[in-house]
Amino acid sequence: MRETDVLVIGGSAAGVTTAITAHRHYPTESLMLVRREKQALIPCGIPYVFGTVGSCDRNLIPDQILADNGVRLLIDEVTAIDREEHTVSTAGGEVIRWRKLVLATGSVPTSLPIPGADLPGVYTVQKDVDYLDNLLQAVKAAQNVVVIGGGFIGLEMADECRKRGMNVTVIEVLPHCLELVYDDDLCERVERELVNHGITVRTNGRVTAIEGNGKAESVLLNGKERLPADLVILSAGVRPNIDLARAADLRLSDGTIWVDRYMRSSDRDIFAVGDCAFRMHYLTGAPTQVRLASVASAEARVAGANLFDLRREFNGAIGVYSTKIGDLAMGLAGLGERAAKGAGVDYVSGVAEASDKHPSTMPEARPMRVKLVFKRYSGALIGGQVCCGETAGEFVNIVAAMIQGGMTADQIATFQMGTHPVLTASPISYQLSNAAEIALMQMRRV
Amino acid sequence: MRETDVLVIGGSAAGVTTAITAHRHYPTESLMLVRREKQALIPCGIPYVFGTVGSCDRNLIPDQILADNGVRLLIDEVTAIDREEHTVSTAGGEVIRWRKLVLATGSVPTSLPIPGADLPGVYTVQKDVDYLDNLLQAVKAAQNVVVIGGGFIGLEMADECRKRGMNVTVIEVLPHCLELVYDDDLCERVERELVNHGITVRTNGRVTAIEGNGKAESVLLNGKERLPADLVILSAGVRPNIDLARAADLRLSDGTIWVDRYMRSSDRDIFAVGDCAFRMHYLTGAPTQVRLASVASAEARVAGANLFDLRREFNGAIGVYSTKIGDLAMGLAGLGERAAKGAGVDYVSGVAEASDKHPSTMPEARPMRVKLVFKRYSGALIGGQVCCGETAGEFVNIVAAMIQGGMTADQIATFQMGTHPVLTASPISYQLSNAAEIALMQMRRV
Repeated sequence: MRETDVLVIGGSAAGVTTAITAHRHYPTESLMLVRREKQALIPCGIPYVFGTVGSCDRNLIPDQILADNGVRLLIDEVTAIDREEHTVSTAGGEVIRWRKLVLATGSVPTSLPIPGADLPGVYTVQKDVDYLDNLLQAVKAAQNVVVIGGGFIGLEMADECRKRGMNVTVIEVLPHCLELVYDDDLCERVERELVNHGITVRTNGRVTAIEGNGKAESVLLNGKERLPADLVILSAGVRPNIDLARAADLRLSDGTIWVDRYMRSSDRDIFAVGDCAFRMHYLTGAPTQVRLASVASAEARVAGANLFDLRREFNGAIGVYSTKIGDLAMGLAGLGERAAKGAGVDYVSGVAEASDKHPSTMPEARPMRVKLVFKRYSGALIGGQVCCGETAGEFVNIVAAMIQGGMTADQIATFQMGTHPVLTASPISYQLSNAAEIALMQMRRV
Repeated sequence: MRETDVLVIGGSAAGVTTAITAHRHYPTESLMLVRREKQALIPCGIPYVFGTVGSCDRNLIPDQILADNGVRLLIDEVTAIDREEHTVSTAGGEVIRWRKLVLATGSVPTSLPIPGADLPGVYTVQKDVDYLDNLLQAVKAAQNVVVIGGGFIGLEMADECRKRGMNVTVIEVLPHCLELVYDDDLCERVERELVNHGITVRTNGRVTAIEGNGKAESVLLNGKERLPADLVILSAGVRPNIDLARAADLRLSDGTIWVDRYMRSSDRDIFAVGDCAFRMHYLTGAPTQVRLASVASAEARVAGANLFDLRREFNGAIGVYSTKIGDLAMGLAGLGERAAKGAGVDYVSGVAEASDKHPSTMPEARPMRVKLVFKRYSGALIGGQVCCGETAGEFVNIVAAMIQGGMTADQIATFQMGTHPVLTASPISYQLSNAAEIALMQMRRV
């Protein structure tokens, strides 16, 4: 029987980060990570395998990072947890004894309950090298691609396929792509950008069947319209992978493994992190569907620190989303206006737009629009949205820091930022200060 | 006699931002801004006039921004303030009565007390279109340029001249360029970058004379070495412009106009903002030489809000510096290690480096190195330094937000950020979390 002080199940962002954090906080404890996949894919990088990056083996989490942090790696599949004995058993016939167990088993893409969803030529986006290698071959051969699901992964897949020159259609069941995260103004910007790049966007579109003779040939839209499709990519959501936890009789909640603020499951010696774990929202206190590698990593940094001593609390997921579609980079942190409204928050918002370099005559300068959302009475920042230069990715992290630092509209109006002609807006027109000041004017009117 | 509720003297970042803020907070009060210059230059953009942007008239603060905010503009020079009568008089013969007066008179570049500093061919970097138009002609005609002063403006001027293909030498009296702000590691990176782009860097270099027959021909270095120079750019510091305030018998402090936390001078109806105003450091509480348009704008947003009601306090300058030299973008917020040491702060630091896109096989990905500095006992963040992708400009503003939000190493270690393959590092290797975690390990060792 193998023995380890800490056993982590799962080799993606949550598992790896938990192991590294455990090594930093408890350098003398032995660590082992077991994962099913021979190679671990960088999850957010998967869409880029099909265009910009070009292959799975250029999109891997290097195993060296585990070795560097004293983590033994075992490629195997855990099939059962024995909580009494503090062991797991594996498909490879191993029994491993642990003192602390971390479940980082992630999520798996869901299919759609429609006829033809299992035809050859229909793929989901799985974190599996062999599967994605097959999908890559299919992408290379395809002429007409239909992506079902206009979320982040769906749009990024569509955009990467488009770069290869094929016909791409995105079908989204909601009125807008990315509607679960962004406000309408930004959703509409994204849709325009997709269309401008030659992608067909069908919102309010329900796929009722995938049809074909032994393989996918078309998609039936709203029960009446046939779109030709030799490749169909299903990107319509994920399901937390909680099979092991359920079999071990751990407490579940909302289809996830219940955890406390220390990331402990109902068994004090078993932690859960990432997409398989229960999440509340930082700003609403309600259960949330936010599923991001960045949230998983934050949870992992809490869990890893708490394994042998309760050192940190996780206060809920903020949800910081960024992406680039076509030439449009954008991001959102916290709650947009739609989400604030949905959560019953009385809010005010302020919008400011300015060139992302200054003067605006700088080469490659482009307008950057920022919206901030504040609680009306306390003035606390609860969200922000930014579009469109490539600095949007780190810009939205300023908003994230301001939320986590508990900053108010008044503090943000007098925010001391760095500005530089080549790198940012001017200090006079810096979007965060101005959006906050504009929001403040509305608070005063009440 | 003209009358206005608010009179702002000075048309650069501090003056304009005060006027805009006053309009937002007190929309019914009349506002006037008086400035000497026919056209107002964007101060930080000035070096780019000589290369990237190409001319002064492409680097102007548009007067429209004043009109849009209900601010009357008067081009004239205020020659005296009468505090008793609440008036100013101007070189153009105007007398203007005000209820509240704002001094935003800025700073002027200092010359050097050496022989030849007044020769033709020797320029300072003045915020004056006609003067800079002459300098631009001189730059276009020059073959050998010597820049005296390796601060931000000096290096940016040198870099823009270099892009024109001339021979450029930078002379810095200290052991390193940018030493007043950055730590040695970053100073050395910048110097390597300058040299790699063909700029000669002479640190520990004291210019003892500028020589020439009726115009600048060479620079005498350390009293013995002659460097050919048909153009000499002096960028060796600035002096706050406090002549009006001194004549009006306002309280002075450290060569600046003394102000309280509300940005009021010793006269309750007169405010001062920007480079002419007294500044304490946010983190050390000591008087500081930080001179940045971004700090000026923050002070202006405090002063403008306080004109008729004390609504905000300015808690001191943090100092957030960013720039791009050659291909190297970089920034610092708050205190570097040298500054922390100099201020007697017991600190720990953590360094993390990771690709600024992920996977690192992404096109144009480059390593980004981050150093964070924390107080040893409280764990409060007091500074951060980042190098080298173009996202450094907004990245360092995350650090600035974390300082202003009062975040600690432990909070930053579990920071919830947004990550995206095209826009940021990966969540596993995100530099802020890892630098904080590494710093924490050192705190625990004590």
